[in-house]
Amino acid sequence: MPAAIDFFFDFSSPYAYIANEWIDALAARHGRPVRRHAILLGVAFQAAELKSPVSHPVKREYTLLDFERSARFERVPYRQPSPFPIATQNAARVFWWLHDTQGPDAAAAWSRAGMRAYFTRGVPLNEPVALKALVAETALDAEAAQDAWGDPVWKQRLKQANDDALALGVFGAPFFIIDGEPFWGNDRKPQLERRLADGRI
Amino acid sequence: MPAAIDFFFDFSSPYAYIANEWIDALAARHGRPVRRHAILLGVAFQAAELKSPVSHPVKREYTLLDFERSARFERVPYRQPSPFPIATQNAARVFWWLHDTQGPDAAAAWSRAGMRAYFTRGVPLNEPVALKALVAETALDAEAAQDAWGDPVWKQRLKQANDDALALGVFGAPFFIIDGEPFWGNDRKPQLERRLADGRI
Repeated sequence: MPAAIDFFFDFSSPYAYIANEWIDALAARHGRPVRRHAILLGVAFQAAELKSPVSHPVKREYTLLDFERSARFERVPYRQPSPFPIATQNAARVFWWLHDTQGPDAAAAWSRAGMRAYFTRGVPLNEPVALKALVAETALDAEAAQDAWGDPVWKQRLKQANDDALALGVFGAPFFIIDGEPFWGNDRKPQLERRLADGRI
Repeated sequence: MPAAIDFFFDFSSPYAYIANEWIDALAARHGRPVRRHAILLGVAFQAAELKSPVSHPVKREYTLLDFERSARFERVPYRQPSPFPIATQNAARVFWWLHDTQGPDAAAAWSRAGMRAYFTRGVPLNEPVALKALVAETALDAEAAQDAWGDPVWKQRLKQANDDALALGVFGAPFFIIDGEPFWGNDRKPQLERRLADGRI
């Protein structure tokens, strides 16, 4: 079986949301599975002494324009949510809980449901009530999900995922690793495509 | 005549060098002229409280890999120069001197000669002796160029170009403005192409 494409994302990253919408089709074109990793970008930023582009005053206006334009470019629906960015540890813990108890496909489906809800309807994934309602809406066990995001086991699982990502050099999202080669950004899609088609760029 | 594409670059920016190699062909495909602006990225970074990606320890290794890979992706020759980045005010003043005394085409040719020399042969544009030799090599008047980069008139011309760029919201390079719409980065090439072809993305 060909090696998986590792795909790192934060539920609050617009560029990761856009990439999450095309990564499966791109991988399938080249016969590769996708291995998703929910992480917390704030932790990665802190480790790298980086900031969100929207927290730079001069970049903020441009970045908001670019989120929306980059989504349109990929034909992905987008409505800038507010507040933005938000804390996504609960959504990420639900991801890992699903991943380990129901499998990667269930976790992938949740990643799509969660980011689509936030980036097209502004569902505040950081608010437990809204998050629980969204879980129920996606036909998952909302009580069990709530128990999971408060459970030290899944807190630790997410922490481990973050540590693993940092150890691999992940400093942003979306971040891709293909056969050991790192790619950062939704805008690296054409390079990923050629890398997968030709084996190199 | 259709409106020009404004193209902002620093002689020490790898991504601007790569874009400088494709921007004329892209613009020509859509019947647009290119208007180049040599600026100093350090000044823009300072105003925006930004840093070069290579000055972030966690990003440095990835960024160096990405420079080379992004050049390869566009079939542009590239050899990582050292020292990097370098001060480019003299090369930029020569650009504006040529621009105002011989015209935009002479300045564009110098932008290509200067960046190709730095990014394929490591010619240190920050060193007056090497810069003067490069000017002579490109069949320009090296004595006059040296006089120009020490002349308050061309120092002021570059400062004005920087101030104008900052006023337009430029915070990185390459930076493009098409009919008032800003695009940042060599990796925005597919969006520029669609914007020019369809009038919107």
